[in-house]
Amino acid sequence: MRVLGIDPGFAIIGWAVIEDTARVIDYGTIETDSSLSISERLFIVYTEISAVIKRYRPDSAAIEKLFFARNTTTALDVSKAIGVILLAFQQNALCYSEYAPVQVKQAVTGFGRADKKQMQCMIQKIFSLKETPQPDDAADAVAVALCGSIGNGIVKRMAAIR
Amino acid sequence: MRVLGIDPGFAIIGWAVIEDTARVIDYGTIETDSSLSISERLFIVYTEISAVIKRYRPDSAAIEKLFFARNTTTALDVSKAIGVILLAFQQNALCYSEYAPVQVKQAVTGFGRADKKQMQCMIQKIFSLKETPQPDDAADAVAVALCGSIGNGIVKRMAAIR
Repeated sequence: MRVLGIDPGFAIIGWAVIEDTARVIDYGTIETDSSLSISERLFIVYTEISAVIKRYRPDSAAIEKLFFARNTTTALDVSKAIGVILLAFQQNALCYSEYAPVQVKQAVTGFGRADKKQMQCMIQKIFSLKETPQPDDAADAVAVALCGSIGNGIVKRMAAIR
Repeated sequence: MRVLGIDPGFAIIGWAVIEDTARVIDYGTIETDSSLSISERLFIVYTEISAVIKRYRPDSAAIEKLFFARNTTTALDVSKAIGVILLAFQQNALCYSEYAPVQVKQAVTGFGRADKKQMQCMIQKIFSLKETPQPDDAADAVAVALCGSIGNGIVKRMAAIR
């Protein structure tokens, strides 16, 4: 099962495609320039995420739940970006799960308050990567995809028990 | 100049198309059932707003700025819907302005804290309508479109002075 993981944002969005919990297929970021209007930036996010879905044909998706930051204006803009990402999922009949930051950290390191370095180190080990995915946002997207993949495995095993 | 006004929401979104500050062309609502998933609901909002734009070919758009409610989860979902609406604006090369609720009330009634009844009464008078647009969300969208139309008029007059 191929899973697309998304680390949402507005100026920068991380994405990663993994195969089960074993292999990182590709990862990257979508960046939008702050000199553009909000609708232009949303258009870029939508166009690029749609292209990633068409290119890698994931079986499902996972997205990090927005952690409610102090800066509510930023939270509202990130939500707009999540809106167009979820639209692209729906248009491509892609089912998705949402994971809170603490769940992502727990799944990857076993510790819900792990820092960025611990996360990157574990991601590198789990997938036997030569280098840590860069930037942070892409590494986070790999972690989110891993959560999705673990979730898919649990669903499969539960279906087998029945 | 034809202006599309939007009263944003998630379960219900009001829209209205007006011609200058003189004539209401049409109005309505987009409703999404809470039994659907968030991505399905965003897909409906996107598809229906795109259809309204294609049908009435507005020259510009106006949307009410999200008033930060106590219920932040709702605010985040409404922002997702705003995201797909702004995407539809961008895909149709539709410029838009944002207006705070207090600006909309000020423009329509001259009083920034006007209640729903005052707003509906003024909308009916300004546009010489036989009936108040129903539901509230559609009436609010007419008010937002009026703000956009007044804004366009000011821009035009300023351009003429130069």
